[in-house]
Amino acid sequence: MKKHFDNSLQWEQEFTVKPIGFVISDLKEPSLVANREGITSNNNSNRIKHQAREIKNLVSRIIIRSSLNGILDGLEQFSHALVLYWPHLTKNESRNLTHVHPMGREDLDKVGVFATCSPARPNPLLVTAVKVLKVNENILTVQGLEAVNESPVLDIKPYNRHYLEVTDLRLADWMENIEHEIGS
Amino acid sequence: MKKHFDNSLQWEQEFTVKPIGFVISDLKEPSLVANREGITSNNNSNRIKHQAREIKNLVSRIIIRSSLNGILDGLEQFSHALVLYWPHLTKNESRNLTHVHPMGREDLDKVGVFATCSPARPNPLLVTAVKVLKVNENILTVQGLEAVNESPVLDIKPYNRHYLEVTDLRLADWMENIEHEIGS
Repeated sequence: MKKHFDNSLQWEQEFTVKPIGFVISDLKEPSLVANREGITSNNNSNRIKHQAREIKNLVSRIIIRSSLNGILDGLEQFSHALVLYWPHLTKNESRNLTHVHPMGREDLDKVGVFATCSPARPNPLLVTAVKVLKVNENILTVQGLEAVNESPVLDIKPYNRHYLEVTDLRLADWMENIEHEIGS
Repeated sequence: MKKHFDNSLQWEQEFTVKPIGFVISDLKEPSLVANREGITSNNNSNRIKHQAREIKNLVSRIIIRSSLNGILDGLEQFSHALVLYWPHLTKNESRNLTHVHPMGREDLDKVGVFATCSPARPNPLLVTAVKVLKVNENILTVQGLEAVNESPVLDIKPYNRHYLEVTDLRLADWMENIEHEIGS
């Protein structure tokens, strides 16, 4: 079956994306650093918990490309948005990793990259749900965005139930423990 | 202020993404069609409601690139995943739209593209939370994916509370009405 799919699908096509905006934030350093060997944490576990809480309260702005004038119209009627951004400080060679220690923690067994939210992934597209605080012309002010200053933003969507809400959520034990630790 | 940001940020940089896999689905036609003028619905409103319900139960497979062997390891421990994909049947010229009628419905006022989930957007990156049914080598079986057959998949992440859950969600009235109609 694999062979059949490999022949008919266009595995070598590429898509190009451009920043629709940039993050302006007081957050200057990512909590995880990725390179060709894997990911490592910039912080100890106490600092990670503290930072995760800080980020929930962090207010950032997203400056939208001026040629997209008006593209935010109506977003102020939603309480939350989904922000897709590119972790621009992540090294390109980390796109080849298939397994990482979750959160760069070597005390946790390596798992497949698609079972983690690691910034080291084949297409480093990061997604965060944020609070919409204000829309003012081409500036969107949000709360809770874990993107460092000057991160390129690729897309913004209203948060909606149909595509994003789930029921009966079950997490892997290691992530359940981490979310419990950081108080999510 | 805008001028300052325009000078210091790299607005012209581009990022390249490649399919990490493809969707194999019985869904052959997108519910919305986008072109340079805007988006139009393939279906009438009754059909849209019916299809939205069908999609919640639709089982699809995602075939992962064989060079990424093992990248799904551990995803089976999560009940849900987030799938990022490219709406490959959407025309490229629809990437220039800044305003659309929600769901292509001309009875609803146009809003900014970033206040909609329209496939017509500057970077057409679509996101859906799905149920994880099975992981078998390089094949992920999911439920609830609104991507048509052969859609290129760009990323897969475990659904987690920290990045994706929100409280006190408020939607624009038009979207609240649509979600009510389709029974989300």
